[in-house]
Amino acid sequence: MTSRADKVIGELERRGLDALLVTGLVNVRWLTGFSGSNAAAVIGREGLRRFLTDFRYLTQAADEVAGGWEREIGPDLLELAVQRLPLPSGDRRQEGVCSLGFDDVQMSVKEHARLAGLVPDSVELVAAGGLVEGLRAVKEPEEIARIRAAARVADDALTDVLTRGLAGRTERDVATDLEFTMRRLGAEASSFEPIVAAGAQGSLPHATPRDVKIASGALVVVDWGARLDGYASDCTRTFATGDLDPRDRAIYAKVLEAQEAALTAVRAGRTGREVDAVARGIIDAAGHAEHFGHGVGHGLGLEVHEAPRLSKQSDTALEAGMVVTVEPGIYVPGAVGVRIEDLVVVTEDGHDVLNGLAKDLQTID
Amino acid sequence: MTSRADKVIGELERRGLDALLVTGLVNVRWLTGFSGSNAAAVIGREGLRRFLTDFRYLTQAADEVAGGWEREIGPDLLELAVQRLPLPSGDRRQEGVCSLGFDDVQMSVKEHARLAGLVPDSVELVAAGGLVEGLRAVKEPEEIARIRAAARVADDALTDVLTRGLAGRTERDVATDLEFTMRRLGAEASSFEPIVAAGAQGSLPHATPRDVKIASGALVVVDWGARLDGYASDCTRTFATGDLDPRDRAIYAKVLEAQEAALTAVRAGRTGREVDAVARGIIDAAGHAEHFGHGVGHGLGLEVHEAPRLSKQSDTALEAGMVVTVEPGIYVPGAVGVRIEDLVVVTEDGHDVLNGLAKDLQTID
Repeated sequence: MTSRADKVIGELERRGLDALLVTGLVNVRWLTGFSGSNAAAVIGREGLRRFLTDFRYLTQAADEVAGGWEREIGPDLLELAVQRLPLPSGDRRQEGVCSLGFDDVQMSVKEHARLAGLVPDSVELVAAGGLVEGLRAVKEPEEIARIRAAARVADDALTDVLTRGLAGRTERDVATDLEFTMRRLGAEASSFEPIVAAGAQGSLPHATPRDVKIASGALVVVDWGARLDGYASDCTRTFATGDLDPRDRAIYAKVLEAQEAALTAVRAGRTGREVDAVARGIIDAAGHAEHFGHGVGHGLGLEVHEAPRLSKQSDTALEAGMVVTVEPGIYVPGAVGVRIEDLVVVTEDGHDVLNGLAKDLQTID
Repeated sequence: MTSRADKVIGELERRGLDALLVTGLVNVRWLTGFSGSNAAAVIGREGLRRFLTDFRYLTQAADEVAGGWEREIGPDLLELAVQRLPLPSGDRRQEGVCSLGFDDVQMSVKEHARLAGLVPDSVELVAAGGLVEGLRAVKEPEEIARIRAAARVADDALTDVLTRGLAGRTERDVATDLEFTMRRLGAEASSFEPIVAAGAQGSLPHATPRDVKIASGALVVVDWGARLDGYASDCTRTFATGDLDPRDRAIYAKVLEAQEAALTAVRAGRTGREVDAVARGIIDAAGHAEHFGHGVGHGLGLEVHEAPRLSKQSDTALEAGMVVTVEPGIYVPGAVGVRIEDLVVVTEDGHDVLNGLAKDLQTID
């Protein structure tokens, strides 16, 4: 298997860069294994592999950083980073210029100005934001195993929470119970604040749980995930708390139809836009075009939202090993909301679902 | 009382800026009241007050954003921001240039390039990072009341957790119990992951709680805080779990002496460096100069760490209404660590402590 560092080097070569300064902490973690809160890395051709952190992380860096990385400690990571940059190579040798990629998506204007003041004149700074994120999108088997384990903890936690019922409890109580149960079952943390949204509140895609009791006969959207070994999971189920209004039952059936159709469309080679269009076509045809305001899914790994996107704007072709959510919804303002979400790994001829809870409409009193 | 917007306008006038683009979410919240996850604001002379968010937050913005702000909704906040910028004023009128401050500490290189492409030629972008943070450092009475309430929830939670003992429980169990208890007592969240670090682990200032049982006869550092109504608290206490080694007892006494002396030094007019030097002098004189590697404190409010800093590098003079921590420590690598931290509001002639737990060494079995 190609090492992660080798993947970066391959991409640097394609872009004609001599080296890359990696400053985003999640990218540093993916590349080196380090999970602390202050670090950077410099990677380049001819074996340049420098990991940089401050004195607080001396021990942790020794424990976590993969072999092959030179570890260096100092109070100012940018000052460390500009030491020992590679000499110009290839066509650049005559010009005497070294091209150093930096993360323009993550680095602030102020830090960039400081970096520009620190590098020698022979170094040209080149915007390279998204380079590492693009490589992270295709997961290794070990990463998929970790995401699957996180999804299993999340499933087990919700199953446990539902034994204590939904109707009559507050949204906030259910959300807190879910967070605590995930932790009790071994999660490092929730991968995001769980959403528990009943009735009309469910029509807000990013609803915050309220100190409001969940009524009987309502639909309740539960969107939650666990973090385990650094990797996130993300899943949504919508439950009934008793006999439903026929309108709500019809909306649930339509979202489930859209979700399963979109899931069937997931395979290597399909674009994010194509998968989105499958769900959107079903929802639009049911008269809910105005009620599905977000993309059908997103990549997930060390971050809950990462490349690729599955939306109207996404030209990205799916590749085997990408892990994505498939989560259409119908949100009728002031009335009701339904979302159903699975987490899947893309395969050459389809997909493999990483979570395990049923999707037929369940009633939880 | 001067409104927050008026404070910003005063600072813009001092800096010769016509308007400010506020993109940091915490700054947007402080200025407008909005607590969602995507927003910006433009503020300038002659009553320019524009609040910008996307369609997901239509309702929340109407509920939360203070009067006097025009609310505008769109998919791209930078595009909204550059519409209707003020005309050049003052000396700039002849030059035909409008000076727009932007947050160079927060804004990425990529976003800045996009902004520069969107503004008309007559607009000059001026780095103004830290402008709002400087104003946020002096708290209003209502803000101090919220921080005090957060500190009270944190105190009550730890008191409750300690009834379940320390020795024999894992660090992680105590930390999780503390988080859950804060939430049960009404906190929105922990203001940061609690630190529970026993014995030699206490020598790591940012220790992560381990699945390791706390021994008897050890010192245990507990550093925790609650978030309530958006405002954070932050406090540290160090407990004994039985009879201590005389060395550990002496270190505790020395840190307490340094903490109380530094606390006494807090008052309007003192610089961060002066307060730091009081604690550092006592710790240095006891032979622990190498064992106190961080500043003595930091400001706190909507963020756990904000202006001002109390450290060797800080020239900031304290002002009445600033809320700061006072938290010296002694960290002997591989052996033991002690930190004692109070949260105080600076007054004209001293300070007012916002948390309430005792600081004499307590034994919790």
